[in-house]
Amino acid sequence: MQGLIIIIKPSSSKLSSSLVVVVAAMMLLLGLAGVAHGGGRRRLVVSSNEDEPCRRMTVYYHDILYSGNNTANATSAAVTRPAAALSTSRWANGTYFGLLVVFDDLVTEEQALASEPVARAQGFYFYDRKEALNAWMAFSLVFDSAAYRGTLNLMGADLMAEETRDLSIVGGTGDFFMSRGVATLSTKAIEGAFYFRLKMDIKLYECYV
Amino acid sequence: MQGLIIIIKPSSSKLSSSLVVVVAAMMLLLGLAGVAHGGGRRRLVVSSNEDEPCRRMTVYYHDILYSGNNTANATSAAVTRPAAALSTSRWANGTYFGLLVVFDDLVTEEQALASEPVARAQGFYFYDRKEALNAWMAFSLVFDSAAYRGTLNLMGADLMAEETRDLSIVGGTGDFFMSRGVATLSTKAIEGAFYFRLKMDIKLYECYV
Amino acid sequence: MQGLIIIIKPSSSKLSSSLVVVVAAMMLLLGLAGVAHGGGRRRLVVSSNEDEPCRRMTVYYHDILYSGNNTANATSAAVTRPAAALSTSRWANGTYFGLLVVFDDLVTEEQALASEPVARAQGFYFYDRKEALNAWMAFSLVFDSAAYRGTLNLMGADLMAEETRDLSIVGGTGDFFMSRGVATLSTKAIEGAFYFRLKMDIKLYECYV
Repeated sequence: MQGLIIIIKPSSSKLSSSLVVVVAAMMLLLGLAGVAHGGGRRRLVVSSNEDEPCRRMTVYYHDILYSGNNTANATSAAVTRPAAALSTSRWANGTYFGLLVVFDDLVTEEQALASEPVARAQGFYFYDRKEALNAWMAFSLVFDSAAYRGTLNLMGADLMAEETRDLSIVGGTGDFFMSRGVATLSTKAIEGAFYFRLKMDIKLYECYV
Repeated sequence: MQGLIIIIKPSSSKLSSSLVVVVAAMMLLLGLAGVAHGGGRRRLVVSSNEDEPCRRMTVYYHDILYSGNNTANATSAAVTRPAAALSTSRWANGTYFGLLVVFDDLVTEEQALASEPVARAQGFYFYDRKEALNAWMAFSLVFDSAAYRGTLNLMGADLMAEETRDLSIVGGTGDFFMSRGVATLSTKAIEGAFYFRLKMDIKLYECYV
Repeated sequence: MQGLIIIIKPSSSKLSSSLVVVVAAMMLLLGLAGVAHGGGRRRLVVSSNEDEPCRRMTVYYHDILYSGNNTANATSAAVTRPAAALSTSRWANGTYFGLLVVFDDLVTEEQALASEPVARAQGFYFYDRKEALNAWMAFSLVFDSAAYRGTLNLMGADLMAEETRDLSIVGGTGDFFMSRGVATLSTKAIEGAFYFRLKMDIKLYECYV
């Protein structure tokens, strides 16, 4: 554990001593205090306006589920069967309830599957309702390109009945060091049981820049 | 990516230039800088006193596991069997070790299952110890009522041997935009293998209000 | 919901009224405002220098997977089989694609499995690629010792092809109340299919101290 507290007294001011502490703490908080550092130093920017994230991008997520016939193209696979197939439950009314899928899916900048890849999405989703199609997911967006290197970590309910639904971006690494935000998802295509495409509007409200 | 840095010079002061930057950055941090905006603008409030969260509520979580005979009422289902049932392992000494359950559970304001619903809890838990009952869970509290609309996302160890145990609230959306906090869980009822009730004391320490 | 806004006017200053609000809000933000409190009060420290986390520790994670012959020692178990074993998919080229493991693993201070335990790691990982060994994981570090009591919650892609890879530390409880940071993982040993050891360099950048 490293001590980071640096108290700096403004040379001439009428500020109360409380304020001096606040200011010093603030400078610390904002990464402005202390001696100059190399590339390691970043400044925390918090945007508290939902309409003005400190960083924003739109990407498209493509899930190609293994169907039995698409080994070359498939990027995800079911690892449990719908609960109906288990001895302990029996729902299977088209809700896939209980189906758990793990994936390493392609993420592109444009909507077309064949467009420029910008990341992989690695994680899982499962269907959690017996009355309707509804899912929950957690995954990492893994960027490894000229533009970005690092990961964003997301989790949340994928309320499939809603036109748009929000997941939490709970952390980041590399170029997305310590980021937080919200990802707004919308379904852009469903082709049978084995392909769907989500638009992901990535909005970061806590950035270290 | 949008630039949010706005430097504001106080018209008359003895503040050092460092402080000016700090203050400008702070105003930014607190969402006080810039021109007035519509509903999108929120202010970050951080409470660093464990006893004084910036938002608090108590809710009750009801898990009704599918038993084979309760299709109408069940809200969760096991999607793997205890490890004993798999070829690769064999523990089943009452710890349910390896059992993974996905759920879309009812969350109420009062303790009774029949009391006013305030949210759904969508997610999963699994039992992770071969020596004792112990679980791990991640889920979203999905609010869609007159009082609240939005989600809170939680994850953590459910140390069932402890009377109370804390999960992390790692993010939120909608009315809980960007929230963080701690949820303290305690078991309030266990009825056989197919129903249990948890009290969840939700305490947010980072709120955007 | 508790109101925490306290406006404090410096007794004598040329600060603009905006700044007064900022300062009051800041004191709030930093937990310096209001009357003195007991143990519940903590101060938020944010380090925005990657090289200077506000708290740091190195620990070693030991995964002993159940093999069929190691009931006494094993601390994890596969709860799904590689996707090849399911009717809906068939990859099994040494990538374990689709294998999901839940664990309650030992975490030590030194590298040796027999060295001093400092925590348990409770959670899960799964293999998510059909072309190569690649995993994703989420878990809690559960500390219960003289040194620390509380949990840290982590999630992210375990990019096994990289010498080091970063997970997000998305929350904490107890002694790690509300912490955030990054954990850098590196594989230190692999012994057959049933034991591996990871070095975890835990770096917190948001600490409540």
